[in-house]
Amino acid sequence: MQHAAAIARLTEIFGDRLSTANAIRAEHAQNETHYDTMLPDAVVYPESTEEIAALVKICAEEDCPIVPYGAASSLEGQHLALKGGISLDMNRMNKVLTINAEDLNVVVQPGVTREQLNEDLRTTGLFFPIDPGANASLGGMTATRASGTTAVRYGTMRENVLALEAVMADGTIIRTGTQARKSSTGYDLTHLLVGSEGTLAVITEITLRLQGIPEAMSAATCRFESVEDAVNTVILTIQSGIPMARIELVDEVMVKGFNLYTKGSLPEKPHLFIEFHGTPDGTKEQAAAFGDIAEEFGASGFQWAEKAEDRTALWKMRHNAHHATKMLEPGAKILSTDVCVPISKLAEAVLQAQEDSKRLGLTAPIVGHVGDGNFHCGISCNPEDPDSMARVAEMTSALSETALRLGGTVSGEHGIGLGKMKYMTAEHGPALSYMRAIKASFDPKNIMNPGKMLPPGNA
Amino acid sequence: MQHAAAIARLTEIFGDRLSTANAIRAEHAQNETHYDTMLPDAVVYPESTEEIAALVKICAEEDCPIVPYGAASSLEGQHLALKGGISLDMNRMNKVLTINAEDLNVVVQPGVTREQLNEDLRTTGLFFPIDPGANASLGGMTATRASGTTAVRYGTMRENVLALEAVMADGTIIRTGTQARKSSTGYDLTHLLVGSEGTLAVITEITLRLQGIPEAMSAATCRFESVEDAVNTVILTIQSGIPMARIELVDEVMVKGFNLYTKGSLPEKPHLFIEFHGTPDGTKEQAAAFGDIAEEFGASGFQWAEKAEDRTALWKMRHNAHHATKMLEPGAKILSTDVCVPISKLAEAVLQAQEDSKRLGLTAPIVGHVGDGNFHCGISCNPEDPDSMARVAEMTSALSETALRLGGTVSGEHGIGLGKMKYMTAEHGPALSYMRAIKASFDPKNIMNPGKMLPPGNA
Ligand SMILES: Cc1cc2nc3c(=O)[nH]c(=O)nc-3n(C[C@H](O)[C@H](O)[C@H](O)COP(=O)(O)OP(=O)(O)OC[C@H]3O[C@@H](n4cnc5c(N)ncnc54)[C@H](O)[C@@H]3O)c2cc1C
Ligand SMILES: Cc1cc2nc3c(=O)[nH]c(=O)nc-3n(C[C@H](O)[C@H](O)[C@H](O)COP(=O)(O)OP(=O)(O)OC[C@H]3O[C@@H](n4cnc5c(N)ncnc54)[C@H](O)[C@@H]3O)c2cc1C
Repeated sequence: MQHAAAIARLTEIFGDRLSTANAIRAEHAQNETHYDTMLPDAVVYPESTEEIAALVKICAEEDCPIVPYGAASSLEGQHLALKGGISLDMNRMNKVLTINAEDLNVVVQPGVTREQLNEDLRTTGLFFPIDPGANASLGGMTATRASGTTAVRYGTMRENVLALEAVMADGTIIRTGTQARKSSTGYDLTHLLVGSEGTLAVITEITLRLQGIPEAMSAATCRFESVEDAVNTVILTIQSGIPMARIELVDEVMVKGFNLYTKGSLPEKPHLFIEFHGTPDGTKEQAAAFGDIAEEFGASGFQWAEKAEDRTALWKMRHNAHHATKMLEPGAKILSTDVCVPISKLAEAVLQAQEDSKRLGLTAPIVGHVGDGNFHCGISCNPEDPDSMARVAEMTSALSETALRLGGTVSGEHGIGLGKMKYMTAEHGPALSYMRAIKASFDPKNIMNPGKMLPPGNA
Repeated sequence: MQHAAAIARLTEIFGDRLSTANAIRAEHAQNETHYDTMLPDAVVYPESTEEIAALVKICAEEDCPIVPYGAASSLEGQHLALKGGISLDMNRMNKVLTINAEDLNVVVQPGVTREQLNEDLRTTGLFFPIDPGANASLGGMTATRASGTTAVRYGTMRENVLALEAVMADGTIIRTGTQARKSSTGYDLTHLLVGSEGTLAVITEITLRLQGIPEAMSAATCRFESVEDAVNTVILTIQSGIPMARIELVDEVMVKGFNLYTKGSLPEKPHLFIEFHGTPDGTKEQAAAFGDIAEEFGASGFQWAEKAEDRTALWKMRHNAHHATKMLEPGAKILSTDVCVPISKLAEAVLQAQEDSKRLGLTAPIVGHVGDGNFHCGISCNPEDPDSMARVAEMTSALSETALRLGGTVSGEHGIGLGKMKYMTAEHGPALSYMRAIKASFDPKNIMNPGKMLPPGNA
């Protein structure tokens, strides 16, 4: 067994909350996408910040890697124990600590999932808006800088994390940020840890902004003759300042997947799914203004959903995109791309992606948080088949190049993990060495989720 | 002359764009508040990123401090050349480079002022919302993480800077962020540089979010019998989800200053200044909802301003707070405090501040961006008089302690500079050493605005 000394010392503290059982290790070696399983040497279930501090100190002394583990829904292998060591399962730290309703914020432990949080908030009239589809942990969402369908209105984790408590790579416990809405005191360590994918610190407490539940919500779908028409509708809606709460594109291939999954019969054309939040009059005004723009671009088949259950049904369909994608090539694994470009370049990027997937003979339905310029191609692939994987690699490279050429980013929300390290130099250039400098100075022994995010080498 | 070798080498590059004239040095040694003048050894006026990179390389080799200089409106002595060296005057880098109207963003050089930017945007239907009162440079605003009256609606520089170009302490030019609205790739260097007060890098280009000019705006003032009533109105308005574009508190002492300054006769009671942005119907709805809440708390004397000139007059009064404060004790210098607390603690903090200033016999009118929980006491002081300065010090310490006790921060928007370094340990605790680690690894020779932000010592 690797890291036997560390595991022995940790067993003294954690007892049966440390497991080296194969089944438990294998469970923590899974992922939602195409990466090989990677076994940690042990899985530990901490219950407090102090326990984590003690664990990190021992791991630092013993040179043992630590990989925080939330809901394991990340899509670039972020939570996999690439170099073995400890999978630090945060799921027992799942308390909502303080709801500060007057201040529109909440303090949570990192193992709380977003569905659990919204459940707990039910009686307060408040909600936490960020919705990545999966029932991710808030620690994992913070660590990957997640977003999802509502970011166009409410921002991403970047805008919604106010303060953190974290255990650093030598076991020091720090607090970043305050409970105030803004501050100009010192370097912004909160934002440095948001998106750091477990490579700088273990996040042990999170203060999140909340929103008042809007008085009125209304949702709709409509279809277009072309992806271009749909995207141009989005661009004009944004430029007209119509405040959408969600606006999602699904292309014709994705609709085919939905039909297979739900045994439905939506016309196989590009669709937009949209939602408005506000006062009853406000949402009506917004919906009407959107309808006018969409019709200009030839939209038809409007279906409005104002009642909660109708809206839920509509978004459930959208959220089933992953499963629906799997219907298109049964048995295939799904690799989800995640580029994000300036809105003005969105039509170009989406059309290029469709062309690339056709050229390469790949099944790659598109769903997109198009209000942010962010879209995913869910590419069917077979990790056992080198030819399939070569074409997938060509597709993802082409997409990444397109995104960078258009002034965008290779990942809007899924993060880097293992899968996107190869684009870090192209995206960040000389800035990358300042990221390396932070990593080296915060984690000199490289025990925090080693081998992720920053590509090997010095470039 | 200190740093003669560096200055000689720089003169070769910059010619008469480097000055060692006493008048020019003295001009760059001034500040808007009570700090002593501090002379740089030379003032340099760069015109390009490449020139700055060359300058920084020479200064690194010669151990010569560099202090970026924007509009010199910062209030904690941030732009003063504490250890001599080069005052790097950014005012010739004042071009608006690209307006990306479709993407609602703009790329500017750091010497552009916010008034100049909004002037340039006039024909686009877009505007840049952040308004710190002073006509600051966008480089300075980025470096201090500035905000102002509109942050309650549009956020601070933290939320509005999308991407940066910067010259690092060894002359390396980096780019952080992209033109896309969001990204999950790597550590967030953009946010690390926003608020870094020239201590990590010289910012040479800034991509800023823009907003569509709202269809309708309406502004108002009203008065209250007590500060508590005014603050409770703000709290309830926020909790009711009424989207205010600005909401400012001025207390009775401040109103007295306005009356002296404008020869006006506003009743000397606490006032709120408020503004709504939206559709014509939307702003009416919001204003009515606000009016109901304010009346519950005994508001009277409503004055509405819907026409542009009326709104301008109203906000001009608010923006003259600094000058109006000076009327209260003619000849005194003004020290502006800047604490920010959770909204629910705002009444407590403001009342405590009023009590402290009475107890200490200080003139300290209050103006506040109360929608963010942020308020300023403009304390009259006489730097020549040790007794006055001792009482001022007691007041600012008491306020900072109050803010920290209530879960807030010692600076909502003015930053640390020289004046607030003494509170960094109390506010950040063990996190401070991670700020020091970043500084040491990014600027190992400590040439970037040395002696600011991070207090001496290792704590
Ligand atoms: C069907 C499906 C749809 C998805 N849709 C979206 C979407 O729309 N938007 C989006 O952003 N993402 C989406 N994702 C990806 C995923 O949900 C997010 O990346 C999510 O944030 C991961 O959270 P998690 O709890 O599962 O984290 P994990 O996968 O467990 O971990 C992710 C990373 O965070 C680190 N980490 C976890 N907890 C901590 C902690 N406490 N401290 C420090 N580091 C920690 C881990 O080490 C790892 O590096 C989707 C995933 C699936 C399967
Ligand atoms: C009357 C008055 C009212 C004010 N009200 C507000 C308010 O409401 N909200 C608010 O936030 N502030 C307010 N301020 C403070 C001030 O306007 C802000 O701090 C502003 O952001 C400073 O910008 P500047 O261009 O004047 O910067 P300067 O004072 O020139 O410099 C400030 C700091 O930024 C650094 N810097 C400048 N340019 C660069 C660059 N290109 N790269 C790296 N570092 C750089 C400097 O080295 C220095 O450390 C007020 C000031 C006054 C005088």
